[in-house]
Amino acid sequence: MSTKPIATAQTIQWRDLSPLIAPKSVAIVGASQRGADANLAREPRGNRVIRNLRNFGFTGRIVTVNPKYSEIMGYPCYPDVASIPEPVDCVVSAVPNRHVPDLLESAANAGARAAVVFAAGFGEIGGEGKVRQARLEALSKDRGFLICGPNCYGVLNVHGKAPLFASTIPPGFLAGSVALISQSGGLSTTIANALMLNRHVGLSHIISCGNQSGATIEEYMNYFVDDPNTRVIAVFVEGFKQPERLLTVARRAADVNKPLIILKGGRSEVSKRAAATHSGSLAGAAEVVDAAFRQGGIVSVRSINELIDTIGVFSCDGFIEKYRGGRRIGVLSGSGGECTLVSDAAANVGVEVPELTEATKANLQESVADFGNMNNPLDGTGAMYDDEKIFPRLLQGLVDDANIDIVAINLEANDPRPKELKSGNRFTLAIERAAAASKKPIATFSSVVGGPVDAEILQPLRNAGVPIMEGAECATATIRNLADYYDFQKSRLSGGGEVPWPKAHGKLPSGILGAEAAFALFKEFAIPVAPTVLTKSADEAASAADKMGYPVVLKVESSQITHKSDVGGVALRLSNAGEVRAAFTRIQGEVKSRVPNAQIDGIVVQRMAGEGVEMILGIKRDPLFGPVVLCGLGGILVEVLKDIAVGIAPLSHRQAQDMLTRLRGFQILGGVRGKPAGDVDALCDAIVGIANLAASLGDQLLGVDINPLIVLPKGQGVVAVDAVVEIQ
Amino acid sequence: MSTKPIATAQTIQWRDLSPLIAPKSVAIVGASQRGADANLAREPRGNRVIRNLRNFGFTGRIVTVNPKYSEIMGYPCYPDVASIPEPVDCVVSAVPNRHVPDLLESAANAGARAAVVFAAGFGEIGGEGKVRQARLEALSKDRGFLICGPNCYGVLNVHGKAPLFASTIPPGFLAGSVALISQSGGLSTTIANALMLNRHVGLSHIISCGNQSGATIEEYMNYFVDDPNTRVIAVFVEGFKQPERLLTVARRAADVNKPLIILKGGRSEVSKRAAATHSGSLAGAAEVVDAAFRQGGIVSVRSINELIDTIGVFSCDGFIEKYRGGRRIGVLSGSGGECTLVSDAAANVGVEVPELTEATKANLQESVADFGNMNNPLDGTGAMYDDEKIFPRLLQGLVDDANIDIVAINLEANDPRPKELKSGNRFTLAIERAAAASKKPIATFSSVVGGPVDAEILQPLRNAGVPIMEGAECATATIRNLADYYDFQKSRLSGGGEVPWPKAHGKLPSGILGAEAAFALFKEFAIPVAPTVLTKSADEAASAADKMGYPVVLKVESSQITHKSDVGGVALRLSNAGEVRAAFTRIQGEVKSRVPNAQIDGIVVQRMAGEGVEMILGIKRDPLFGPVVLCGLGGILVEVLKDIAVGIAPLSHRQAQDMLTRLRGFQILGGVRGKPAGDVDALCDAIVGIANLAASLGDQLLGVDINPLIVLPKGQGVVAVDAVVEIQ
Repeated sequence: MSTKPIATAQTIQWRDLSPLIAPKSVAIVGASQRGADANLAREPRGNRVIRNLRNFGFTGRIVTVNPKYSEIMGYPCYPDVASIPEPVDCVVSAVPNRHVPDLLESAANAGARAAVVFAAGFGEIGGEGKVRQARLEALSKDRGFLICGPNCYGVLNVHGKAPLFASTIPPGFLAGSVALISQSGGLSTTIANALMLNRHVGLSHIISCGNQSGATIEEYMNYFVDDPNTRVIAVFVEGFKQPERLLTVARRAADVNKPLIILKGGRSEVSKRAAATHSGSLAGAAEVVDAAFRQGGIVSVRSINELIDTIGVFSCDGFIEKYRGGRRIGVLSGSGGECTLVSDAAANVGVEVPELTEATKANLQESVADFGNMNNPLDGTGAMYDDEKIFPRLLQGLVDDANIDIVAINLEANDPRPKELKSGNRFTLAIERAAAASKKPIATFSSVVGGPVDAEILQPLRNAGVPIMEGAECATATIRNLADYYDFQKSRLSGGGEVPWPKAHGKLPSGILGAEAAFALFKEFAIPVAPTVLTKSADEAASAADKMGYPVVLKVESSQITHKSDVGGVALRLSNAGEVRAAFTRIQGEVKSRVPNAQIDGIVVQRMAGEGVEMILGIKRDPLFGPVVLCGLGGILVEVLKDIAVGIAPLSHRQAQDMLTRLRGFQILGGVRGKPAGDVDALCDAIVGIANLAASLGDQLLGVDINPLIVLPKGQGVVAVDAVVEIQ
Repeated sequence: MSTKPIATAQTIQWRDLSPLIAPKSVAIVGASQRGADANLAREPRGNRVIRNLRNFGFTGRIVTVNPKYSEIMGYPCYPDVASIPEPVDCVVSAVPNRHVPDLLESAANAGARAAVVFAAGFGEIGGEGKVRQARLEALSKDRGFLICGPNCYGVLNVHGKAPLFASTIPPGFLAGSVALISQSGGLSTTIANALMLNRHVGLSHIISCGNQSGATIEEYMNYFVDDPNTRVIAVFVEGFKQPERLLTVARRAADVNKPLIILKGGRSEVSKRAAATHSGSLAGAAEVVDAAFRQGGIVSVRSINELIDTIGVFSCDGFIEKYRGGRRIGVLSGSGGECTLVSDAAANVGVEVPELTEATKANLQESVADFGNMNNPLDGTGAMYDDEKIFPRLLQGLVDDANIDIVAINLEANDPRPKELKSGNRFTLAIERAAAASKKPIATFSSVVGGPVDAEILQPLRNAGVPIMEGAECATATIRNLADYYDFQKSRLSGGGEVPWPKAHGKLPSGILGAEAAFALFKEFAIPVAPTVLTKSADEAASAADKMGYPVVLKVESSQITHKSDVGGVALRLSNAGEVRAAFTRIQGEVKSRVPNAQIDGIVVQRMAGEGVEMILGIKRDPLFGPVVLCGLGGILVEVLKDIAVGIAPLSHRQAQDMLTRLRGFQILGGVRGKPAGDVDALCDAIVGIANLAASLGDQLLGVDINPLIVLPKGQGVVAVDAVVEIQ
């Protein structure tokens, strides 16, 4: 079990990544004179970086390193890094993996502050690769040397004109406000190309960070939070290297309203194996990662296409400026079938397709004479193609409708047919005009995903603040993502979400805490417990019971006995002192005869809790995210259906509520089958309490398991009946 | 509640749709001489049909109808349908909706046998539209007149060269083996264009059937089952008009191994409203439709893109011929990130990504020297781009691996970049060669969905039997669909799936059946019941109890009392005759005093069932599919989580098993929390029994609710304890 210390916002020191991402001088190691003449596909990576720098107009100093030459492609060449007259900010390593550790150590010695390492064959292959990677990690950790990679395509700073990038960068690269960070080199360019060419979305940076043996994804994100050229941060990640920093950087991003959009690979067992193999990443438990994303307001997407569409919308200024929250869409389509399918897709992701207002219906009936039913989705039918006056009127109807937050037009911008047969571009001008006049955000989506996106539709619409999405599924998921992000920010601004870290708790003795000690600890964190006293004699037990009131239960206390009732160690529903005395004696006798060697600490007397909903509430340490709160309904819901809500400590009352509403069986707490509603408010308090306990105890806490926690009827609170606390 | 008679294979009469789909002569109504000169977009639909017929090389007779002319576009023109010298097979109606009913009636009178109606404004707009549609439906029903539409694009018979189609058909239309039926006109061409241009998939027909006021989707499917040019039948449907025929046509399709692939819209409440609006369709309950699809072996897809990829794979002869079942994929990718993402996608849909055999690993280590880990997905890394010998060897390794059923290559066939920068086509030849030599099916998929699919990659691969899919999500869902279909066919061939329809049951008295009558009925269908006797006196009760053995329960019998225990009408755990007598008297007294006006039929004596898992088992009549079996675990699983399995009666034992395994709480039947495993086999028998009961009783049965049915430990059977049966 990991005992990684938990970082808090206060304790985190962020390194300045400028020498890596915005270097003023670079040295390329691994280029050659021969490489300069190779064709594009066969060009050595070192030469390709030089060409990229030149084509992009890098304004800093470029030098190369190769003992064979005195210049390469017109740039001075030195035999080794130490011989470069003045230290460079960043060294680009395009040499085979076995040379990398020596090279980087000599670069650090020579005063360089950063390096980009393309080569694979490090942590991801195990064995000698791991040894190589350890040397890089030591450089980063001990000397603050910044490393992008290894096993990556490197850094492409678009506005800074610094493409330390292993892949050919085509002319006409689209500059913009999206920073894309990807552990995968291949996907970094695949996603970037789709953004630029299929969505007309410009980029501020591409970071292909590979094994993150130096700079981590958390550090890159943090850099972009402060970068004035970046407004949207998008990430493909398999494993976080500094997960304890994730929520801090998410908070910093939220403070400046820069959305963090993350596609997290490695959710399944097979994919975790895959991720470990090729990037040496620990993927972590999907549920815990989901909880962290939710709490951090991170926009979590589940596919590359959802990532692309979500980036496309979040980065479309004209659209975002008009968006005022809400998830009610008004859809206009020429296809009745698509009206049905987009409604299904919306229902799947929780986006609403409300009915139009009566005012809109009346207006449309008037302006579009003899037209069919005025519904949402609004089916323009063939009429909208036949009569060009109809489309703008229907569109305006949706724009003006008070029930609608976002207008979504079904538009085939990706029609694969020859130009003369396409119909999508017939509406471009009308949409541009409507968008120019509208205070409501307008977007478009196609029915099919795929096919060439027509630049003659895409670019003018994008410039008019109208993003294009492909497919009803991605379009509705994207709108859901937007609305969730907006709600998160709104809730933050109204005081939700900021959870203070509790004061550190003193050291507790190692091992399993007994019931009395555990319950005493719970009381410190306002987790209600059933009155519980450890007694050593029948008289002591009877007097304790008298004090707490009847009925009571007796339970043997011994760290060596886990199933107490199996050895006669439990007596229930005792209603007076006589019964308590008799039960005490009986338990003592039975347990002694059945488990003669067990050390008995005494017998616990506990006030029996009233009837309510049995829950489990606990803490587990996640190897990545530290203390995690788990909560679920006792019995089959937890045991068979694994219906467990997860939160990262500490938690606010609102976050605790949010956790509970995600339980499939949440409705049970509201009262089903004739039972009264449970005290959900008190349950949230208990969740906040246990989260504070975990945060306060920090690394010394290995786990807590309250089972059951009884949720009494509304107004009567909750009560912990039995619990195990494990201290390191 | 609907009482639509249930059709069986024997009773269905299928009409011959040839006059509509493969007419030998057509009359176009609604073309004009002026229309012949209009530009493409403004061309009247009638003229467009004539042009389509001419361009496609229709070999039959073409005439036109218009009182103003004697010829149009070179074809003879008559003032009305009655004046056409010899009757035509099919009339194409391109006239406004208000003229359609008269036109079709005159056409039928003149001896025409079919019509295609493009106009909208029928059932979908209500009011006068409904009246118009009723006249069309009467023509179809009473006179066997075949109608495609209204509110549609019509019929496009590719091999028969009969495009009675309202949309322009581009030159180079790709002929093939896929029949596409779509309620939506717009989606019919959108999907067809994507198939032809993004997947190089050829079509045998497009049917845009709109409101189905004449020919239904079930009829079209049936036609294509018999059509020699069609091997794959693909459908977009919002509502079935003859759902009682669906399973019959599915069986006919399965008999000739033609996959039926259906995208069903209208799953959510909003989309049902949308479907009702624009095509007048009743969408039906999604769970019941899902059950029907599963039982019929219908390939059910959830999005347009899944439809396209699934059609693409099922129609790729070279691929399908090699497929021998199984859902274990071997993935080759140059991107480690995609290896992770496709593993996640596979896990989501139940496709396996097994480890490679040791033999494969050893072979690869030898043939691809100094390469990284040999995993599945197999990460070719940058090396596969750098050294062209590597890719074919890795591919061959997967082809030869005994653990793998399908090889899936991650290939960016839709790279949007300029040609000189693309890398996907570097592997085309190697894949073609591997496919030519391989007995194992090979497919490719891209990371991103979208962008222009490169014909230079697509066409040679398709011709080599290698289909292209876009996106890991669709690719893995498609492979799951393929494997499910294969499993269904295998199970059919081994005797599963064919469920005989039971003999019709005699008429039962109307109303709610009492316990004794209900249980007698259950016994006819081999549903075990707790021994139950209706008694009228304490002595009678005691003697009945003596006969059945103790313990017993007593329950008051009255159709006017639903909550028996609330009125003192139940006594549990009676263990001898004395207790039975006393309980009888007590119940009689209590019920009389609490509900003095209730008519009491007596008191039921029932042998108490042993301990087991409480289930509910019942029958509901679905408005579309008739008698539906519902089964679930009693308590919160049904009530809160709506965890209910659905089947369409009658059912086989195997289908009953399949239903149960879909329950989220299925594991409970296997024994959890220290309880013994339940008798699942006997439970399946009971499901088969109640399904037979429903099928046998037919329309007179309104509903059955067995609650609880107790599933006893393995080998001890099940027992129905309480039940309500409602007869019409």
